[in-house]
Amino acid sequence: MPRASVTRKVHFNAAHRVHNPRFSDEWNRDTFGECNNPNYHGHNYELELTVEGDIDPDTGYVLDLNRLKQIAEERILRRLDHKNLNLDVEWFKDLIPTSENVALVCWRELRAALPETLTLRLRLWETPRNYVDYQGA
Amino acid sequence: MPRASVTRKVHFNAAHRVHNPRFSDEWNRDTFGECNNPNYHGHNYELELTVEGDIDPDTGYVLDLNRLKQIAEERILRRLDHKNLNLDVEWFKDLIPTSENVALVCWRELRAALPETLTLRLRLWETPRNYVDYQGA
Amino acid sequence: MPRASVTRKVHFNAAHRVHNPRFSDEWNRDTFGECNNPNYHGHNYELELTVEGDIDPDTGYVLDLNRLKQIAEERILRRLDHKNLNLDVEWFKDLIPTSENVALVCWRELRAALPETLTLRLRLWETPRNYVDYQGA
Amino acid sequence: MPRASVTRKVHFNAAHRVHNPRFSDEWNRDTFGECNNPNYHGHNYELELTVEGDIDPDTGYVLDLNRLKQIAEERILRRLDHKNLNLDVEWFKDLIPTSENVALVCWRELRAALPETLTLRLRLWETPRNYVDYQGA
Amino acid sequence: MPRASVTRKVHFNAAHRVHNPRFSDEWNRDTFGECNNPNYHGHNYELELTVEGDIDPDTGYVLDLNRLKQIAEERILRRLDHKNLNLDVEWFKDLIPTSENVALVCWRELRAALPETLTLRLRLWETPRNYVDYQGA
Amino acid sequence: MPRASVTRKVHFNAAHRVHNPRFSDEWNRDTFGECNNPNYHGHNYELELTVEGDIDPDTGYVLDLNRLKQIAEERILRRLDHKNLNLDVEWFKDLIPTSENVALVCWRELRAALPETLTLRLRLWETPRNYVDYQGA
Repeated sequence: MPRASVTRKVHFNAAHRVHNPRFSDEWNRDTFGECNNPNYHGHNYELELTVEGDIDPDTGYVLDLNRLKQIAEERILRRLDHKNLNLDVEWFKDLIPTSENVALVCWRELRAALPETLTLRLRLWETPRNYVDYQGA
Repeated sequence: MPRASVTRKVHFNAAHRVHNPRFSDEWNRDTFGECNNPNYHGHNYELELTVEGDIDPDTGYVLDLNRLKQIAEERILRRLDHKNLNLDVEWFKDLIPTSENVALVCWRELRAALPETLTLRLRLWETPRNYVDYQGA
Repeated sequence: MPRASVTRKVHFNAAHRVHNPRFSDEWNRDTFGECNNPNYHGHNYELELTVEGDIDPDTGYVLDLNRLKQIAEERILRRLDHKNLNLDVEWFKDLIPTSENVALVCWRELRAALPETLTLRLRLWETPRNYVDYQGA
Repeated sequence: MPRASVTRKVHFNAAHRVHNPRFSDEWNRDTFGECNNPNYHGHNYELELTVEGDIDPDTGYVLDLNRLKQIAEERILRRLDHKNLNLDVEWFKDLIPTSENVALVCWRELRAALPETLTLRLRLWETPRNYVDYQGA
Repeated sequence: MPRASVTRKVHFNAAHRVHNPRFSDEWNRDTFGECNNPNYHGHNYELELTVEGDIDPDTGYVLDLNRLKQIAEERILRRLDHKNLNLDVEWFKDLIPTSENVALVCWRELRAALPETLTLRLRLWETPRNYVDYQGA
Repeated sequence: MPRASVTRKVHFNAAHRVHNPRFSDEWNRDTFGECNNPNYHGHNYELELTVEGDIDPDTGYVLDLNRLKQIAEERILRRLDHKNLNLDVEWFKDLIPTSENVALVCWRELRAALPETLTLRLRLWETPRNYVDYQGA
């Protein structure tokens, strides 16, 4: 059975602040610079969802991308889009909302919603010039 | 003397909330929907600065784009980048930070820094799928 | 009252054939080349909807872009997305579905749905390397 | 000998219909939705051809990308560009032209035209928001 | 007769040096900075060719974009692609090859090849972050 | 400790000539075509720097991307931006400046500046339609 990966991009806008409350304000300013602004800043996040698996001979699909988009909307976008990651999203109550950690929690949430036969990889663009890849390692 | 326009793109990230304090919370929720989130959301803004004028025969330039970028950094990016538009930026003390109004205040600020012989137009991308044009009309 | 333009991009996929039934098959092949393929070919169309008007001081908007997107979905995308322009769309019963004509009929349809105080301009991308602009002239 | 991958993007436009003739019309409509439109729809496909191998010390190339582009034009674009994948392309006589299967047949065709010392991977964009990766697995 | 604009993007790579031989080396270094490097630097230029005119009722075209691309290849790309603008291109014998001037000479060359009933506008991208517009003014 | 990759894009413009001085001019013209132009041509290079490692629980970062950008500016961009790769850059004294080799020397230079616990991969875009990947293999 031939094996392929299919990818769907989804989008969300959010505010965040990169801050570790276990350290001093001075440490945070030194470490995170302008990303530590107490009043938050924000991004247009582009999230690429990649699913790898066998091509189903009946449908010619690894997975219907409309189904993947629907899962992402229910599990990810409903929680993150037009939100403040630090204040509005329970996942970041004890976790700094860097791109690395946003990708990590999205991966865990989506992983739980997909059949085990499918592999999941994520790429999260924070700006048009930087992104994070996470695949559960 | 031939006449041309030159454009330079600059970038800033910011948080904002679309909210009119002269109206009720209900009106604001009905009018602005998820953009009214009290805890803010955010964007990667791309700002295109277009300057029209004569091509200088000595330099072959309408305006040195490095100079234009420098003006934008001093006058715009220093104030807006990694900021909360509602809380950190005086321009929006009495002005709703919609894309239309962000473009308008950027135009006024840059207009004052450019020679009168040059025309100025701005395009502000709020997301990869929507933008505003403002040229002082 | 300051005046600005706001633009929203929408997307549709469609098949089409560039063919003028009033002329011979030979004329059509000579004139339209591979775009005349009798079995159709297709495109991912990107349509930029630009609306110009006064910035409303209550909302800071020229027009709510979600409203504009909704109008485009009801009036344009519902008719054109995942369709064969020649066979499935009444607008092209007697009109060759070139980009020029697709932009023209979309403009007329949207124009009728917008307040007269707003100006409408369209840009239609047929491929990432060519597009058409139409503004009702 | 250092080893690298080189990638060239090529482009084709095509119409297609996602349909499995071994199942009922009702099953096809339920499974494929608007992609099952009997009159076809279409896409601007972007195909990324990636070839991995040793860097030749005489040329500094893994493979001359103009040669790779030429192979793609002869073997792929001549067959698929401005075509109806279901009706005009023999490869899809008994194979549903989903992105997964388009990538698979392109890979087999190109694989046969390349030296065995080179590895081949393909990425096929069906729209600017979804793509398939196939590497012969 | 409805009127529209059609645009085609073409591409060329070239080396250049921004330098005015009528001034001293010091003036040139001060004025043009790193763009004055005596050994040249280079760009991937993207040139957007926009032609405005009536939509021909027989073809549905303002102008066949394949014809426009062909004119650009013969008149522009053959001269500029993979060239050193200062050394290889006669147009810049006495003209500094800034983006403004490259756009200007391309416009004059293309203008002479097009019917007078069509309006011509050019946009030349020198990098993904800056471009020049020229329309013969 | 979860593991992720972070990527930062940087940009440089340069002139180059693809030429092997150990072979005849005729061989060079036959092998490299227009890329062998004796007067050079040029590109806008986009370089994607990818670093893989553990996510630091204190910062939520694999590596601060501002630090990575700073390293790239000091070690790569200062040497290559607005330069002639053949004439101005010592790395290419005995090495043909193809994309493959540019990626290779950038990788070696950056590899030496990064902690051994981090993996480094590079993608170098020479034009918007072709790129090279190198990861030290």
